[in-house]
Amino acid sequence: MSSTPAWEQYLQDHRDQHLEELFELLRIPSVSALPEHKDDIRRAAGWVADRLRAAGVPRVELLETDGNPVVYGEWLVDPSKPTALIYGHYDVQPPDPLDLWETPAFEPSMRNDRIYARGAADDKGNLFMPIRAVAAIHGSGAEPPINLKFNFEGEEEIGSPNLPPFVQQHADLLACDFVLCADGGMWGPDTPSLTLGTKGVTGCQVNLTVASTDMHSGMFGASVQNAVRAAAQLAASLHDENNRVAVAGFYDDVVPLSDQEREDFDEVPFDPEGYLEAIGATAFVGESGYSPVELNWARPTLDLNGIWGGFSGPGTKTVTPAEAHFKITCRLVPDQDPNKIIDQIESHLIEHAPAGATVTVDRGTTGGSRAFRVSKEHPAIQAAWEVLGDLYDRDPYFVRLGGTLPIAATYQEVLDADMIFYSWGMPDSRGHAPNENFQLRSFDTAPRGYCRLFERLAQTEN
Amino acid sequence: MSSTPAWEQYLQDHRDQHLEELFELLRIPSVSALPEHKDDIRRAAGWVADRLRAAGVPRVELLETDGNPVVYGEWLVDPSKPTALIYGHYDVQPPDPLDLWETPAFEPSMRNDRIYARGAADDKGNLFMPIRAVAAIHGSGAEPPINLKFNFEGEEEIGSPNLPPFVQQHADLLACDFVLCADGGMWGPDTPSLTLGTKGVTGCQVNLTVASTDMHSGMFGASVQNAVRAAAQLAASLHDENNRVAVAGFYDDVVPLSDQEREDFDEVPFDPEGYLEAIGATAFVGESGYSPVELNWARPTLDLNGIWGGFSGPGTKTVTPAEAHFKITCRLVPDQDPNKIIDQIESHLIEHAPAGATVTVDRGTTGGSRAFRVSKEHPAIQAAWEVLGDLYDRDPYFVRLGGTLPIAATYQEVLDADMIFYSWGMPDSRGHAPNENFQLRSFDTAPRGYCRLFERLAQTEN
Repeated sequence: MSSTPAWEQYLQDHRDQHLEELFELLRIPSVSALPEHKDDIRRAAGWVADRLRAAGVPRVELLETDGNPVVYGEWLVDPSKPTALIYGHYDVQPPDPLDLWETPAFEPSMRNDRIYARGAADDKGNLFMPIRAVAAIHGSGAEPPINLKFNFEGEEEIGSPNLPPFVQQHADLLACDFVLCADGGMWGPDTPSLTLGTKGVTGCQVNLTVASTDMHSGMFGASVQNAVRAAAQLAASLHDENNRVAVAGFYDDVVPLSDQEREDFDEVPFDPEGYLEAIGATAFVGESGYSPVELNWARPTLDLNGIWGGFSGPGTKTVTPAEAHFKITCRLVPDQDPNKIIDQIESHLIEHAPAGATVTVDRGTTGGSRAFRVSKEHPAIQAAWEVLGDLYDRDPYFVRLGGTLPIAATYQEVLDADMIFYSWGMPDSRGHAPNENFQLRSFDTAPRGYCRLFERLAQTEN
Repeated sequence: MSSTPAWEQYLQDHRDQHLEELFELLRIPSVSALPEHKDDIRRAAGWVADRLRAAGVPRVELLETDGNPVVYGEWLVDPSKPTALIYGHYDVQPPDPLDLWETPAFEPSMRNDRIYARGAADDKGNLFMPIRAVAAIHGSGAEPPINLKFNFEGEEEIGSPNLPPFVQQHADLLACDFVLCADGGMWGPDTPSLTLGTKGVTGCQVNLTVASTDMHSGMFGASVQNAVRAAAQLAASLHDENNRVAVAGFYDDVVPLSDQEREDFDEVPFDPEGYLEAIGATAFVGESGYSPVELNWARPTLDLNGIWGGFSGPGTKTVTPAEAHFKITCRLVPDQDPNKIIDQIESHLIEHAPAGATVTVDRGTTGGSRAFRVSKEHPAIQAAWEVLGDLYDRDPYFVRLGGTLPIAATYQEVLDADMIFYSWGMPDSRGHAPNENFQLRSFDTAPRGYCRLFERLAQTEN
């Protein structure tokens, strides 16, 4: 840490070039949700592969899947050193609503010391940071101090349907000691953080039918079931008066929060008013006995994502609806099994089916995903903690995500590799929203963070 | 009843002409719900007025309202005789879904001894029957044996928004002893019936908001309210486990069913299997302690007509919805006051608002309508009972409707005139549906029923 490393000079000298390169990537509308962008997806994958090659990565390939290609890269330097697999994605969310963008989504622009564009943070900006780090190491005549593999996908924004089978099929190729996730965020611009867990997910659609046709409420409403009433009753049965999930067995496998975890959570600053204000909510409502942070980070939920049935137009229609539907997703924690949970929910729904209503449960095609946890004692977490502490001159927070990154559980299950989130999204990066942005501060800090982390990891036991 | 009356010969001689006239009316697409049919509405009103004039009615006028015109007619013969006001409507429902019609909705056709067309039964066919009766009396050189007034509106299918104020404004003009309703139905082709009551109606839309924006269920779902869950909970709170309405005070003013009424209801045949089969339902579900017929005819309801909120597309969206809505209508019985009921419902909804949810109630613009009852001892009901019994050679049933005809309550309140339903829709007339039809048997019976009723009413006390 005494003399300026060679990669530092390279990063300084090539800052403008790297900025221009990121802008190139951001100009490619690689929207995975929209079929008309199929060519752009290919273009973005090719661009990423080219940048990896230019950064000196000796093996770079586009590997096909049933969907969009995976960009795979590999720079193996020494079998006695640890191997890190770097994950990221080159696809982006659709840009709409277009009229809320101050500058066009796919014409990157700089203002307020930020880069504005769709994908600026999620995930093109973040994905490009480890590539810059490797380019700087390579460009200054060195090679990475640890073995690196790259696994960049093009379907994250549509739920990564082809990545789990890809990882299964290429388990040997992807074998590694741990995964660095170049997708995600930091607590704040001055406050580094390390994410020790994400929630799992499962879900279903519930369909209720009480008749073969909508009915005249005056002729039938008094004496037969009403699908909307039945749906409301059934949906309401899923929670008890303490906002706990009322599905039998739902909490059976939940690993209780330890005192140590609760203490760790308490150390992270939480602004209750700001949290509510950000979404225009007025009150905390959750499973009783837990703080909002505990609920968000460590307690499972059953969320109603939508409900519909009967008449929703203006005015009045005296109809007794024949059908109604609602959608459920659950956020899961260790050690809940998504399949077991959805079985329990289905049993509850069938058992609680209101009189006269036929209830069916559509589980969809995805089997759900388990929660992910990594220990703060993990050597790579410890290494990242030290590097970030040094970069920011303060200890990083240990945090969790209430959201789900299914691939974290997949890597853990298939590769036996824990994921270390190492990424520079910010709370105001506006991922998935208009005016998505990436701070120039992050642009400057992140590649240095990667170079230093590689060096620090080279000192860990393999 | 001994010699053949003169009007009988006239009806026989002019059957084809009357059929062709009805076809003319049915060809006019007087759809009140669709603004593009404004001219057709005028055309239909003009046609009805012309037919009344041709039938000898000395005073016929189109009276303007804020919407479609009322066709008013008046043939006053003797102040010592009773005055009947005949109600009907010349507007029709939209014809869609068009592809389910075997012949086009506005090209009347005859098959299976029925006239098929939109409005064949509801209400053009029925409205034309008393006009034919008067035409036959006039055509055979006589004048009606009682005083007749006609009040045909053009907005029934959009809820008669302008008829109650019209009746208020023209109370003197419309003054009468009772109303004959040429809109409605008979129990069956061989089975006459008289309707002694209809239900009232009131309703509202309920809006729940828990935040200013839809939320990421992983970031917020565990610790804040979910609008769909709150809506389901609130909607489910409106009934108890016995399917009774759980709104405080809802049943306070309900006149209990008398033993006599229950006995009268029991005399009317009811086919439970056929009733359920017609709508593809599997079970009766209603307020406990009452038979299906009692529920449909004499018990108030609170119906959920629709619910919506959050995500309803294919697949999964892990959203915590910010808003949800549902619609309520109630079917009311004597002596429930629609305004008081809606006040009680609003109080219930506000009191039961789930934590973190803001609940607003939108009452819409119509104030609702009271239930209608007429005694079976009413002299005009007695007269109709005798005439129908004679025509069909069997006693008519006394029935009720679970539906609402707001104008019945209006005539009762403003004109102090009870309504006698005297109309020939059949259970399979398919009003409001594709292949609406009017039986030729009804076409032949109804005008005779009117002629005889006029004669029989002339003998009642005024």
